[in-house]
Amino acid sequence: MISFVNDYSENACPEILEALQQTNYEGNKAYSYDRHSELAAKFIREKIGVSDAEIQILVGGTQTNLIAMAAFLRPHEAIIAVPTGHICVHETGAVECTGHKCIEVAGVDGKVTPEDVRKVCAPQHWDHAGILTVRPKMVYISQTTEVGTVYSAAELRALREVCDEHNLLLYCDGARLSSALDCSDMTWELMGEVFDAFYIGGTKNGALFGEAMVIVNPSLQEDFRYIAKQRGGMLAKGWLLGLQFETLMQNGLYEKIGAHANRMAMIMREGLLRLGVRFTSDSPSNQQFVVFPNSVLRELENDFAWEVISTVDDNSTEIRLVTSWATKESDVHEFLRRVEVCKFN
Amino acid sequence: MISFVNDYSENACPEILEALQQTNYEGNKAYSYDRHSELAAKFIREKIGVSDAEIQILVGGTQTNLIAMAAFLRPHEAIIAVPTGHICVHETGAVECTGHKCIEVAGVDGKVTPEDVRKVCAPQHWDHAGILTVRPKMVYISQTTEVGTVYSAAELRALREVCDEHNLLLYCDGARLSSALDCSDMTWELMGEVFDAFYIGGTKNGALFGEAMVIVNPSLQEDFRYIAKQRGGMLAKGWLLGLQFETLMQNGLYEKIGAHANRMAMIMREGLLRLGVRFTSDSPSNQQFVVFPNSVLRELENDFAWEVISTVDDNSTEIRLVTSWATKESDVHEFLRRVEVCKFN
Amino acid sequence: MISFVNDYSENACPEILEALQQTNYEGNKAYSYDRHSELAAKFIREKIGVSDAEIQILVGGTQTNLIAMAAFLRPHEAIIAVPTGHICVHETGAVECTGHKCIEVAGVDGKVTPEDVRKVCAPQHWDHAGILTVRPKMVYISQTTEVGTVYSAAELRALREVCDEHNLLLYCDGARLSSALDCSDMTWELMGEVFDAFYIGGTKNGALFGEAMVIVNPSLQEDFRYIAKQRGGMLAKGWLLGLQFETLMQNGLYEKIGAHANRMAMIMREGLLRLGVRFTSDSPSNQQFVVFPNSVLRELENDFAWEVISTVDDNSTEIRLVTSWATKESDVHEFLRRVEVCKFN
Amino acid sequence: MISFVNDYSENACPEILEALQQTNYEGNKAYSYDRHSELAAKFIREKIGVSDAEIQILVGGTQTNLIAMAAFLRPHEAIIAVPTGHICVHETGAVECTGHKCIEVAGVDGKVTPEDVRKVCAPQHWDHAGILTVRPKMVYISQTTEVGTVYSAAELRALREVCDEHNLLLYCDGARLSSALDCSDMTWELMGEVFDAFYIGGTKNGALFGEAMVIVNPSLQEDFRYIAKQRGGMLAKGWLLGLQFETLMQNGLYEKIGAHANRMAMIMREGLLRLGVRFTSDSPSNQQFVVFPNSVLRELENDFAWEVISTVDDNSTEIRLVTSWATKESDVHEFLRRVEVCKFN
Repeated sequence: MISFVNDYSENACPEILEALQQTNYEGNKAYSYDRHSELAAKFIREKIGVSDAEIQILVGGTQTNLIAMAAFLRPHEAIIAVPTGHICVHETGAVECTGHKCIEVAGVDGKVTPEDVRKVCAPQHWDHAGILTVRPKMVYISQTTEVGTVYSAAELRALREVCDEHNLLLYCDGARLSSALDCSDMTWELMGEVFDAFYIGGTKNGALFGEAMVIVNPSLQEDFRYIAKQRGGMLAKGWLLGLQFETLMQNGLYEKIGAHANRMAMIMREGLLRLGVRFTSDSPSNQQFVVFPNSVLRELENDFAWEVISTVDDNSTEIRLVTSWATKESDVHEFLRRVEVCKFN
Repeated sequence: MISFVNDYSENACPEILEALQQTNYEGNKAYSYDRHSELAAKFIREKIGVSDAEIQILVGGTQTNLIAMAAFLRPHEAIIAVPTGHICVHETGAVECTGHKCIEVAGVDGKVTPEDVRKVCAPQHWDHAGILTVRPKMVYISQTTEVGTVYSAAELRALREVCDEHNLLLYCDGARLSSALDCSDMTWELMGEVFDAFYIGGTKNGALFGEAMVIVNPSLQEDFRYIAKQRGGMLAKGWLLGLQFETLMQNGLYEKIGAHANRMAMIMREGLLRLGVRFTSDSPSNQQFVVFPNSVLRELENDFAWEVISTVDDNSTEIRLVTSWATKESDVHEFLRRVEVCKFN
Repeated sequence: MISFVNDYSENACPEILEALQQTNYEGNKAYSYDRHSELAAKFIREKIGVSDAEIQILVGGTQTNLIAMAAFLRPHEAIIAVPTGHICVHETGAVECTGHKCIEVAGVDGKVTPEDVRKVCAPQHWDHAGILTVRPKMVYISQTTEVGTVYSAAELRALREVCDEHNLLLYCDGARLSSALDCSDMTWELMGEVFDAFYIGGTKNGALFGEAMVIVNPSLQEDFRYIAKQRGGMLAKGWLLGLQFETLMQNGLYEKIGAHANRMAMIMREGLLRLGVRFTSDSPSNQQFVVFPNSVLRELENDFAWEVISTVDDNSTEIRLVTSWATKESDVHEFLRRVEVCKFN
Repeated sequence: MISFVNDYSENACPEILEALQQTNYEGNKAYSYDRHSELAAKFIREKIGVSDAEIQILVGGTQTNLIAMAAFLRPHEAIIAVPTGHICVHETGAVECTGHKCIEVAGVDGKVTPEDVRKVCAPQHWDHAGILTVRPKMVYISQTTEVGTVYSAAELRALREVCDEHNLLLYCDGARLSSALDCSDMTWELMGEVFDAFYIGGTKNGALFGEAMVIVNPSLQEDFRYIAKQRGGMLAKGWLLGLQFETLMQNGLYEKIGAHANRMAMIMREGLLRLGVRFTSDSPSNQQFVVFPNSVLRELENDFAWEVISTVDDNSTEIRLVTSWATKESDVHEFLRRVEVCKFN
């Protein structure tokens, strides 16, 4: 069985498993006060060019997002996001569970636009008291998005601008950041410039687990660790997280992981395009969304795995194909070969 | 100045102010254990024909809705509502502040439809784990709705049916229930049949303040009062609430209040229709939504008051005209006369 | 039946009921933007000598306290209080329900001492990470306290000092503030100096309902109204609250209410002391806590009412006797006369 | 440097690191639907003899406790615990952050007693409305406790009994369960009998991370996974957790880990007792609490590590010495030898 189900099907990339073995008996300090966590933070600060950024590595994506909302927002402040946003549909209402409303805006290609933001922030005639609706305070984006698209540097700068106009925070969910860094013109440095806070995904980028929260805006840094602890996000063995990001942030490992995944995805994409397969999003990243006849899927399903996204019609289905650091080029070619056979039989 | 701004511009109807004077020195028991609260509950139970309904009178509408969500739902359970729903836009995110997500569905004429509900409850292909999205658990409706429309008895029975199919609660916000009872074929008895819980609005129906929560479904009754108290909804002087609903629920007072408000609204509506004014919703109730040229509004604004709803275009504006128990028929005619003058000059 | 059960057994003092009658058809603006609310705020600001204090009148005491905690504290910040504090035992966990921990300190005579505060704020050896415990951030006191005692001006200044040392807020629950103002050397002006925020109780001081939150510290004022609305604390008919405090804050009415209640309590106290009755707290205010033989209570219970506090032993019980603006001097004397008869028979 | 600071200073026991290496490319299903998680659950169910127990492995201890409270309790329900309870002082108010009050009872030797529980559950005279205080609903205990003591089987049965009397849940925090199983007469089977739910600690018992929630009471099982996900407790790579507990629950590994740690602790304890060192708790488990002269600590601190608990007086300090699966017998002897030298010089 060759799997394109997701980018977190393996335990971790070999470098990380090796590091866990090597350091077993070091006896590190608890709660992220260890030297691995310090090194990970140092490497991240250097990449983004923000020497006073606060770094705290947390365990999982939902947890990281909910801690961000709990820490950065007052109770009446709301988040702006697109309906496909991870916080809107994949986190069991974790954000609302912290008490904050998520205001959904239409977006384009899975991305929040400045127009979306302006519309939400325009005053409402009927809100005579000025307090009947929540106060929009944060724009939540994912890079790459849930539909595989990416924000360009120009789009990010435009979002930053509209956020500044309306006194909003700009927060980026980087669950698949390694892929985004490879296929967009966004750089590490730009992230340090445009985002108030973002997280560097580990789980879907070769780590065993772990997501590194990077708080650029100093006004959001105070007591963040308290809130992370209170929400169950601090690991007693915090060095396990530090060690992984120390590894990922060195020697270009994180960037290589994204580059490989994207290269595999592009081979897949170009191959399928050549075969006339229809794509439902214009994704340059490691998630590809395609429509297949159900008959083809039935022929392939014993040898390949994917995620079903939606029923298109009685005869066809939208599926998602995901590549990762662990995807083998030969497996992609094998898949393409088999699709071709299906299509022409 | 003649006001059609809302239905809560007066302190209270005279019967209620009189009752407050009469009972000042009775020395009632605290926390709703008084005989007025008992009588109010008795009258409500008789009206709806549910002898074991739990009644607890709370102070305001936002408070009543948020206590309902806090008491009736587990943390991962969500509410289905239309985007114009009071809980979605007029309560500063109070429902999300209790931790629950509100799933917005399109609706028709400001009303949730069974199809809306079925669509939300359909399983999602991509939610392989079955726990990534919140669990829909309650359908929230308002009767009358925020756009002045009403659910018919048949529509309510159809919603009950789809709720039973999907194990959902049906909850009704009755902020303007007196109006709804007069202009729909919904009866008090039907409310006892189709709703798991609902509240009988006081504030917008002649009371000084107060909303009577009626919990029909026995499984939702346990410890409701604890949660009401914990959220600040219990008044030490609970008899003040009991006394008002004892008054409203006797001698047809509540029904008369709705009937008068509606009669005033219909005179207004028919008069404006005759003058060719455009309505943005087909409302049989005490809220009327109309589009006026800005030039007309400027001529009227020194003598009449309304609420602005939205900017239609450069030259016209949607406004809301509301009638109540206190609206004088002569004031409605005076408004119509002035509109007519404006229109034809 | 003569009742000393509590100070909120009547609807409201006559001046307030009269004001409600007089203003019924004024057509005030909603959500506290009316002139009565403005006047109430003006009068309060003048009394405390803080021209930029933010005033927002809320409905009930539990609600007011919980909104304060929700608005003033970040999620990891905790409150210091004595175990008898209203928030600790009389509010169904409302404060914890906003997510904040309440740290109980022993106190003396129902009052928090500077030593209590210093002990809580001392660093813990074992908290190596510095984030394992909540961060103390607010000292909560009641004036008068739940056991009827009062903080002197000197005690309040000492608390202010220790709060400044540890960057803590000082918050005062003024549910029975009219009594405290009469029987302590605390003045309105001092409240404006030492408290970050406090509320002026209405419910137990002659109002129908309502508690006026006074936010002295400018850093706590921003967006308070949003959070009040979100928690169900804003009344659409906010002018009803404004009107009551406009009335109470004029012509010395509020101060007279406390003075009368205290005078009645002192007649009660001195009379009972003369009869050798034992008091369980040294209260100069309108709540008196005494121990009576059960046999005496049985003789009195058909004609007088009180609240039972605790079982002292098999033969005696601690009860609370409360006086208010509505207590008649003749009723106090009648009670004393009857106790005397019981005691000597 | 020889460390007795805690029992989670190493990454993980070798068996677990090995398992992570071996399974890297298996391609397991996400969100705990993998076969490792199933096997772990099977082994746990067999140990406790409850075939329908719900097992869900979460990431950390604070997280596990807070998810338990969020899932098992309604908003007004409170927890009973001793002041040294982990939830009371080591979790940054995580339980209160879920909205629940923690009622502290005195306890004996760090353990909740049936009398403590009965006292809390006795009705309060003054709570006339019956809803002014929270409703006690859960007894929280740790086994072993925070001071190293253990509940005997008889004590656990007595707690179960008082819980049944008052309709309370009995919940056990098993952060150091392997030690408790070795040094008390509590068995796995007894846990299945007396607890409504408990968790089997991984982090402090040889795992890399992970705590296995075991829900015995069927009425608590429904939708637990939703709430775990919503609070950030579900790992996408859930098999990492399953794999670790599959390993720990086989071949007596978990029991061996506790037995070794305890054996090391007993050598330490007996050695120190022989040297006349004073212990502050009577602990049979892997945490030993002792008082040392500061002069001795200064002599030892360059070669050994411990946790400081409290300042006893100007000349002595209470410290904690912890052993684990990784503690070497020779290191314990070396410590004892050095203490002896210090003491007699």
